[in-house]
Amino acid sequence: MQFNFKNPTQIIFGAGMLAQLGEVAGRYGKHALVVTGGGSVKRNGTFDRAIESLKAAGVSVTECSGVEPNPRLSTVVRGAQIAKDENCDVVIAIGGGSTMDAAKAMAAMVYYEDEPWNMFFSSEGTFVPPTRALPVITVPTLAATGSEMNSGAVITNEETKEKSFVNVPILFPKAAIVDPELTVTVPADQTAYGVCDLITHVTEGYFNGVDGTPLQDRWAEGVIQTAMEWGPKAVADGNDLEARTQVQWASVAALNGWVQIGTKAGYPVHMIEHTLSAHHDVAHAAGLAVVNPSWMRFAAKQRPERFAQFAERVFGVQRNGGGAEEAAREGIDRFEEFLRSIGCPTHLSELGIGEELIERYADDTLRIINDGNGNLPGRPTMTKDDIVNVLRAAL
Amino acid sequence: MQFNFKNPTQIIFGAGMLAQLGEVAGRYGKHALVVTGGGSVKRNGTFDRAIESLKAAGVSVTECSGVEPNPRLSTVVRGAQIAKDENCDVVIAIGGGSTMDAAKAMAAMVYYEDEPWNMFFSSEGTFVPPTRALPVITVPTLAATGSEMNSGAVITNEETKEKSFVNVPILFPKAAIVDPELTVTVPADQTAYGVCDLITHVTEGYFNGVDGTPLQDRWAEGVIQTAMEWGPKAVADGNDLEARTQVQWASVAALNGWVQIGTKAGYPVHMIEHTLSAHHDVAHAAGLAVVNPSWMRFAAKQRPERFAQFAERVFGVQRNGGGAEEAAREGIDRFEEFLRSIGCPTHLSELGIGEELIERYADDTLRIINDGNGNLPGRPTMTKDDIVNVLRAAL
Repeated sequence: MQFNFKNPTQIIFGAGMLAQLGEVAGRYGKHALVVTGGGSVKRNGTFDRAIESLKAAGVSVTECSGVEPNPRLSTVVRGAQIAKDENCDVVIAIGGGSTMDAAKAMAAMVYYEDEPWNMFFSSEGTFVPPTRALPVITVPTLAATGSEMNSGAVITNEETKEKSFVNVPILFPKAAIVDPELTVTVPADQTAYGVCDLITHVTEGYFNGVDGTPLQDRWAEGVIQTAMEWGPKAVADGNDLEARTQVQWASVAALNGWVQIGTKAGYPVHMIEHTLSAHHDVAHAAGLAVVNPSWMRFAAKQRPERFAQFAERVFGVQRNGGGAEEAAREGIDRFEEFLRSIGCPTHLSELGIGEELIERYADDTLRIINDGNGNLPGRPTMTKDDIVNVLRAAL
Repeated sequence: MQFNFKNPTQIIFGAGMLAQLGEVAGRYGKHALVVTGGGSVKRNGTFDRAIESLKAAGVSVTECSGVEPNPRLSTVVRGAQIAKDENCDVVIAIGGGSTMDAAKAMAAMVYYEDEPWNMFFSSEGTFVPPTRALPVITVPTLAATGSEMNSGAVITNEETKEKSFVNVPILFPKAAIVDPELTVTVPADQTAYGVCDLITHVTEGYFNGVDGTPLQDRWAEGVIQTAMEWGPKAVADGNDLEARTQVQWASVAALNGWVQIGTKAGYPVHMIEHTLSAHHDVAHAAGLAVVNPSWMRFAAKQRPERFAQFAERVFGVQRNGGGAEEAAREGIDRFEEFLRSIGCPTHLSELGIGEELIERYADDTLRIINDGNGNLPGRPTMTKDDIVNVLRAAL
């Protein structure tokens, strides 16, 4: 086990913490670009409370609203231009993962001198990492992506229908103000998708990481168990602030790097899903709910013991004389049942996706990232046929 | 659950990472105060390799050796004076928790203008936190305290026989170079004490934290399970690098703040033990091994369900119709057995400590920290009599 890790983001967590936004933002700037999504933060009052806190602290505001789900490169470029035109010195994201990812990319795009799409990873050698960014503060209104406390951003190139990512230390937010009260208005389906998203963040590292990370295994299992205990409560009653609190903390911890530390995790499920949501307007986590169980059944053939451990520790599956394969299968079935129980889709047909473009999804996925031999990194690595078969099994 | 958390230390972890010391230190300074303990790092070659790496990176060195176990205020003052006299611009600790704690305190003492002992916490109103420190780099040679990646330091005032602490953000090391190869020469008894130390760091938060931190519970259990799985292997075969690796990572994770986040943990076991090792020359973690099980039996009377959870999740204790009290008792017994199995003492008599000064230990503990009503913070809070009784039960 080897790693080099630093996460310098300050996290301010708890119900009511939104009120601290102005004071925190004032440490980093005087004129904020406030980035928002489709308008829910305006309808539910979060935006007004944020602006009030900023103004009270002497921080003036320029708005960049309308970040779409699966945020687009053109939106990033637009936001960066506003920040430049208005001389913003700090970027504040108030919204879900899309808004936060877009805001982080905008903060870097302000200084970026290359072609905008080159800021995002590609197997074709065009990637030029950004080296400077405005300070970013995140205010998540959804418990899902963990973007609030990590250095990644996922952006869609709407022209090429590619979805890719950037992950560099300069993108760590200076502060994440994580206030579970802001999530009580999230509808049940989005809440369930968030639970699926956060669980998938840790299953990727758990199943695709290197051997010999036993503490990280335990922590990943802890995140999953916590999400499975509290997620259904948050889905059942959106106003259950305790459930919202536990789910949101789990979502931060699922992708702030602590659980994945040293695992050198691949993210094959995410990579395949990104291609789906680049082509179709589906919620990222709904896509994950479809791809992940199918991927697990594929990967468990190679590493049944690993999946049996998951089954035993997370679901209490007993082997009772059966082999690892049987326990692994039961664990994956139970996981899929859990996803269905909170309202997640588990078939492509439920997303309105057929088999027409299946080869294209595989090709696109491998164009974004491959291991140099044309295969998708992960355990095991996946050929194009493997990707096609996993998707076909999920039809 | 509410918290405000940031841990900006860069951790560079893995066998062989010592070679990176020079490059890392060179980012922060050109002339290092290198702080070491009793000489083992010189005998086993670690010191020479560190100096070689520093010199190759153009970092010159002034030494401050001889930091004792339970490091003394006079040693901190001495080291700070050397750093000032020699114009050191970075402090590097190579050693165990004592060396790292002393180095962190020296880094702040360089700029400290108050009475030296006022830098450390006291219930008597004399505490003046330091506000500035030289950059610190830690190179732990023992898996135990977690000091390498946190902002705390514990120092003994040898004149008053008080042992107290300081914990402020300026003391976070800039970088921790954690190389498990450096721990293979640690003797079996010290290895066992380290395992006990790291476990006690998480049991404090687990048993003395606020309610409603289920993810932190899982993570604490994960640290304990990992330490119990790999600790005995490291004790049995010091050259088992895999065991050394897992134990050392567990020791970092046990006190870098991640597991304790939001728990607002009290540390009654540590506070009581500090008084013992201020009066007697005993290893801190040997004292913890004695105090912790006795404290657990005291605290379990108030919160049997909490201790039953510990018993069930960590030791797989089944209730089988018995009550929480019975499960709690069995869990504590099993924990004590584990400590004995790796060679830790569990009675004061094994440390050469009798009952003569028991009242004094309690008084001293409460002088360092109390809740304003004269009781020791924790769950439950402890009166002087409670402390005396816990110590008496451990004779």
